[in-house]
Amino acid sequence: MSGASGKQIKKVVLAYSGGLDTSVILKWLQETYSCEVVTFTADLGQGEELEPARKKAELLGIKPENIFIDDLREEFVRDFVFPMFRANTLYEGTYLLGTSIARPLIAKRQIEIANMVGADAVAHGATGKGNDQVRFELGYYALRPDITVIAPWREWTLNSRTTLLDYAEKNQIPIAKDKRGEAPYSTDANLLHISYEGKALEDPWVEPDEDMYTRSVAPEKAPDTPTYIEVEFKNGDAVAIDGKALSPAALLTELNRLGGENGIGRLDLVENRYVGMKSRGVYETPGGSILLVAHRAMESITLDRGAGHLKDELMPRYAELIYCGYWWSPERLAIQALIDQTQSLVNGTVRLKLFKGNVTVVGRQSPNSLYRMDYVTFEQDSVYNQKDAEGFIKLNALRLRLGAMAKQKIG
Amino acid sequence: MSGASGKQIKKVVLAYSGGLDTSVILKWLQETYSCEVVTFTADLGQGEELEPARKKAELLGIKPENIFIDDLREEFVRDFVFPMFRANTLYEGTYLLGTSIARPLIAKRQIEIANMVGADAVAHGATGKGNDQVRFELGYYALRPDITVIAPWREWTLNSRTTLLDYAEKNQIPIAKDKRGEAPYSTDANLLHISYEGKALEDPWVEPDEDMYTRSVAPEKAPDTPTYIEVEFKNGDAVAIDGKALSPAALLTELNRLGGENGIGRLDLVENRYVGMKSRGVYETPGGSILLVAHRAMESITLDRGAGHLKDELMPRYAELIYCGYWWSPERLAIQALIDQTQSLVNGTVRLKLFKGNVTVVGRQSPNSLYRMDYVTFEQDSVYNQKDAEGFIKLNALRLRLGAMAKQKIG
Amino acid sequence: MSGASGKQIKKVVLAYSGGLDTSVILKWLQETYSCEVVTFTADLGQGEELEPARKKAELLGIKPENIFIDDLREEFVRDFVFPMFRANTLYEGTYLLGTSIARPLIAKRQIEIANMVGADAVAHGATGKGNDQVRFELGYYALRPDITVIAPWREWTLNSRTTLLDYAEKNQIPIAKDKRGEAPYSTDANLLHISYEGKALEDPWVEPDEDMYTRSVAPEKAPDTPTYIEVEFKNGDAVAIDGKALSPAALLTELNRLGGENGIGRLDLVENRYVGMKSRGVYETPGGSILLVAHRAMESITLDRGAGHLKDELMPRYAELIYCGYWWSPERLAIQALIDQTQSLVNGTVRLKLFKGNVTVVGRQSPNSLYRMDYVTFEQDSVYNQKDAEGFIKLNALRLRLGAMAKQKIG
Amino acid sequence: MSGASGKQIKKVVLAYSGGLDTSVILKWLQETYSCEVVTFTADLGQGEELEPARKKAELLGIKPENIFIDDLREEFVRDFVFPMFRANTLYEGTYLLGTSIARPLIAKRQIEIANMVGADAVAHGATGKGNDQVRFELGYYALRPDITVIAPWREWTLNSRTTLLDYAEKNQIPIAKDKRGEAPYSTDANLLHISYEGKALEDPWVEPDEDMYTRSVAPEKAPDTPTYIEVEFKNGDAVAIDGKALSPAALLTELNRLGGENGIGRLDLVENRYVGMKSRGVYETPGGSILLVAHRAMESITLDRGAGHLKDELMPRYAELIYCGYWWSPERLAIQALIDQTQSLVNGTVRLKLFKGNVTVVGRQSPNSLYRMDYVTFEQDSVYNQKDAEGFIKLNALRLRLGAMAKQKIG
Repeated sequence: MSGASGKQIKKVVLAYSGGLDTSVILKWLQETYSCEVVTFTADLGQGEELEPARKKAELLGIKPENIFIDDLREEFVRDFVFPMFRANTLYEGTYLLGTSIARPLIAKRQIEIANMVGADAVAHGATGKGNDQVRFELGYYALRPDITVIAPWREWTLNSRTTLLDYAEKNQIPIAKDKRGEAPYSTDANLLHISYEGKALEDPWVEPDEDMYTRSVAPEKAPDTPTYIEVEFKNGDAVAIDGKALSPAALLTELNRLGGENGIGRLDLVENRYVGMKSRGVYETPGGSILLVAHRAMESITLDRGAGHLKDELMPRYAELIYCGYWWSPERLAIQALIDQTQSLVNGTVRLKLFKGNVTVVGRQSPNSLYRMDYVTFEQDSVYNQKDAEGFIKLNALRLRLGAMAKQKIG
Repeated sequence: MSGASGKQIKKVVLAYSGGLDTSVILKWLQETYSCEVVTFTADLGQGEELEPARKKAELLGIKPENIFIDDLREEFVRDFVFPMFRANTLYEGTYLLGTSIARPLIAKRQIEIANMVGADAVAHGATGKGNDQVRFELGYYALRPDITVIAPWREWTLNSRTTLLDYAEKNQIPIAKDKRGEAPYSTDANLLHISYEGKALEDPWVEPDEDMYTRSVAPEKAPDTPTYIEVEFKNGDAVAIDGKALSPAALLTELNRLGGENGIGRLDLVENRYVGMKSRGVYETPGGSILLVAHRAMESITLDRGAGHLKDELMPRYAELIYCGYWWSPERLAIQALIDQTQSLVNGTVRLKLFKGNVTVVGRQSPNSLYRMDYVTFEQDSVYNQKDAEGFIKLNALRLRLGAMAKQKIG
Repeated sequence: MSGASGKQIKKVVLAYSGGLDTSVILKWLQETYSCEVVTFTADLGQGEELEPARKKAELLGIKPENIFIDDLREEFVRDFVFPMFRANTLYEGTYLLGTSIARPLIAKRQIEIANMVGADAVAHGATGKGNDQVRFELGYYALRPDITVIAPWREWTLNSRTTLLDYAEKNQIPIAKDKRGEAPYSTDANLLHISYEGKALEDPWVEPDEDMYTRSVAPEKAPDTPTYIEVEFKNGDAVAIDGKALSPAALLTELNRLGGENGIGRLDLVENRYVGMKSRGVYETPGGSILLVAHRAMESITLDRGAGHLKDELMPRYAELIYCGYWWSPERLAIQALIDQTQSLVNGTVRLKLFKGNVTVVGRQSPNSLYRMDYVTFEQDSVYNQKDAEGFIKLNALRLRLGAMAKQKIG
Repeated sequence: MSGASGKQIKKVVLAYSGGLDTSVILKWLQETYSCEVVTFTADLGQGEELEPARKKAELLGIKPENIFIDDLREEFVRDFVFPMFRANTLYEGTYLLGTSIARPLIAKRQIEIANMVGADAVAHGATGKGNDQVRFELGYYALRPDITVIAPWREWTLNSRTTLLDYAEKNQIPIAKDKRGEAPYSTDANLLHISYEGKALEDPWVEPDEDMYTRSVAPEKAPDTPTYIEVEFKNGDAVAIDGKALSPAALLTELNRLGGENGIGRLDLVENRYVGMKSRGVYETPGGSILLVAHRAMESITLDRGAGHLKDELMPRYAELIYCGYWWSPERLAIQALIDQTQSLVNGTVRLKLFKGNVTVVGRQSPNSLYRMDYVTFEQDSVYNQKDAEGFIKLNALRLRLGAMAKQKIG
């Protein structure tokens, strides 16, 4: 028999949103494993109140001391989002990894709680076709190698909407009115982004409806005059907007507001899932889209070329590691050490113009600037000897010349 | 003595624009080397008429048979721009390499002419501080290893505007009225882009004037309603717009029109030059900016994940090679072989929305699509066994678990 | 139910060695799936006669037209071993991939036979803990995506030596006398190598017994005088030894003889399996060890630096792909295109000294040599201007200097 | 005028060996620049006494306080050799970088002395055709961006042996008798290796004379019985041999003795110089050759697969950076951070067999071992579920299957 079924489970920590699916899971765990269930609900900035989740857990028979509700927003941005942005990370050239980067934190906190309450298992509500199951479980195993993982969607038989609703009704699980019908999309949200997948989006030739979007106005509806902002960086992380110092979560919240108002950060793509198929997703990442542009611009005057190009070459691998759930792997930690080592001089200020979906860099300055007007000027200068270029070119060309001679036998 | 000075030159092929600088160079070559000068003027889509260059060359004493004027637009897009776009190429994450990609073609044609006319030298008008001298000369040496290269800006003493104008006057070189004063920017243009550098742009904190731009309206001034287009690809190259087959140059011209009208393709950046300093550049690449988004979207449903990620990891290196002038190097050719090998199934159509600076993918379809709705659907399915995910995760997690156990000594 | 069990199978092609294990599998397939069994036995140079396998298959009731015995030695070396050696391939710095590289060919031929005979399934005798199951099955699926795969070791309950022998006896499967007791090692052999794993080798602190080795004398027992040979290359592949042209398989056979006699090619290592654990293996690769040294030496005078360094950077990835079974993947094919593109000038002769385990390059020459005595000589020369080095260094140093100045604020 | 000639120099620090060449340079600097000369002689384990260098400097008029003689052996091995070996570094697959890794330390110390004595220039004795000029000067510029560099071989006219000897005689520079005739090879030596280049080695088809070698016996002359040793590692660095703790320099010295006696570490190759041509070199690296094998073996049981493969992929780049003189560059420091991050668990002991040129791993053990006999055993086990492999393979195969289906249109 596959899965955890059949194992003796004493106590399980469930990643619990308070929604229908994880409420059904809660009940199903109690029934199937006859075990104590601990619920863990995190505030990652998804924009929902968490107290209803507590009430619902209590209603479903969870003891108060077994209900954990944590505000992880600062930790999320400081220890996960910001380190990732230091690498200018994009998966497959475009995706800002908004869902991927939240999973390792949830897994970490879930294991911490399991350790605190003496649980021997953890459970999550991700399906068997997606990346999230991988991200959660690689995190669990990396942080507690002997943990038992329960993934109900891979074990149970409630795999259609109807059977799920039946199960909920039979077990007195309250069903929100708007959950009766099927949601038009599957979504995931946190302070970095919201994603939409499935259903109406499954045909990749069809444009999404405008009313799907929740975090940004359409570029068409954004203000007709640009907004200018200045983002300040310290050691590669954004620390202030327009001169006002902000905590990581507060800063990202403010960038989200600015981006959302200006129609910034919508993305419609087909991506390659780790489990092998292609999938269509639509994302809104208003603040992150601004941050990416700002960080690259900050690096453009403060980061050495060699270090910058090295980072660029490693970035796709780093993005793949995060996308596939390897945040806690030795190789992600090693690349992070490389990235972080380059950021100590990424300090200064970037000036940006936000306008109807566009983020344009219009200025950058730094106390550590490597940009030198006296070197680059078209004017006469004394610091750079143009004749040096001849030797530079001649020696760089030597192997090309020898290669051409060998072919032409003229050498 | 450095440079070519002192060498006996018989005949030199000069990359000649017809402008003031290369006209002065023409005269200076005649004087300094007492050699026959052959002029070569290429139409790469820079948007200037070439016949005036012929007239001016004749006026300066060049024999008609020594004046070469070539329309290279189709070759440029087909053999240089398109191969580069197959790799989704961006230098330092943002720059579309509009200037870099034109240089190897100019070098190639210049050497072909040198071979035809029996010249022993070539000359160009690039300065000693920039990348273009490297790009030209690496091309010359790779294609004809025994060529003598004359780079007047590294040899002569006419390094200020005044001395240059004096020299022109003394030598009866006509000076266009608008060239008396200094140009506010140094520009380079071809069918892919126009660049602006220097002077007013040298302070990277200062936003460029709106009236600098020539190929695109400001997003603010672009139409208030979006334009939808469909771009069709074959073997990774764009071949048609809205169902109308177009030659490579015609297609890029049309994309430039569409992009320019919709405020697309402006870029303001600080880049790392190959010769070692940082430089601020502003670029307009209207059509290329659309093409990049379209090509990635086409690949998103037709390219295998492994091949796509490999390309992404090699792209920064490939971009660096082009930026630094190594188009004709063995390693660029090797990477190109890899890239081209992946493109045979990159066929289909991408639907795009163009609106005030934004290029948004809204649809993609392909006869070779690897996107499979039946595999990815949230609905019940028979093709994918969700239980497979458990083994997939367990074995991928094994090394992480063993690592954690070794640390915890609990294994 | 996992595995193929329960599926209706009509006809299965079994990779059949004629040994005890695959004979038991043969019987088990007939019993379990009530299907027609087709046996496929390949000569990959493992050094065993194949006719006994035919006899045994007949004895076990396989119809003559269902017994396939193929000599694949030339195809193996020409289309698998040689392409791999063009990349100087080593897994984890040391392993020559002798087992890994044979699997894709077996998978390919097995699928070809399945297509010929109209089989709907294939089966192999690899266990559920190793890499070979992955290599076989990725090959099967890549070449025939709808095939059913039967991996008895993952399905049945005959997982101990005793139960296996019992099953054999009950089913009148002849058991060679020396197979009664357990083999001291698990081995795999082909023209490239023989491997030893398991049992006595499971403690990685214990040195293997000398009498384990079968393809090489101990260095201690090798001749006291060196053997000198010359290996000739064409397009990156070895084509002759000491002036005598040889087919790929004949050439590798001769290198094996030379290497084996001189104690060359033994390797004792711990490697990382794709399925997640570390494993200790001992390998003998006499001819391959010579070939690797020879090929690198041939490239050392014929391959451009840029191309060579690029190959070196991609090699570990390429080795990983082969090790993990991705020979038929799009990304392996793409890297192969890159590698092959670089080999057209890898022509010439390498002279080697073989002595008691050592392979030393003592000479290399090529009609395409890029080595130029006139450029490298310590004598006075006219082709290279030493002063060019100054500009070369100055411009390469510029970014380092600007970086240091920014830190020191002295600029 | 190129080079430093013509500049006003006050005080110059010369990398001074005490040999003929650098003694001539010393005199030539005094004459040409009329400046104060400070000599710096380092003991890097080259195996020569340094006091004669002091005497000779005094004889040539250098003030005692301007003569610096430093024993840098421990710093060399601890801060340069060992960090490099953590990456299993090989240039172009074979070269252990014995010369390259010493240059950044010499440059660093030379600049430190320049800062101490208030010098405005440094000078070295490397020629204009080699890599060493680049390595020295990139180091100088990176550590003191405003330094003036004097490279006499690129400036003077003493470029033949005769003119050099004439100059020495005219200037009363003592000439060792054995320096009258030309040395048969150019050599460089330190605790890691000795190199031979030039002259008799310039024909890459000719095997070097046996009497050239100075640090190792020929394998033919090495003992007929193997030597077994155990090397202990801590955090990736070797710390003891056969249980005896040794300082870095003492440990490498002992490995050199062991390797040299057993004919280990000779290498004959053609390498690609940074300045563009190919060059033939022969190297003896007895201890380093042992250390490389030992370190990889130590990692084989202690390093995670993901981290190990990442290191392997970056190694060629890292080697190239060291070879080309970029030790002090931001990108080398960044890669070093990545490498070092992986080494904290590389602890334990490796057992090696040394025999006539061969270094064979015969055992490895570690308190942090990731090798788990219970996971890898062929015996029945409970920790690993073989059925997991099915899902692992199926999901890894999915994209390959979808690709094949798309081609076959059977999906």
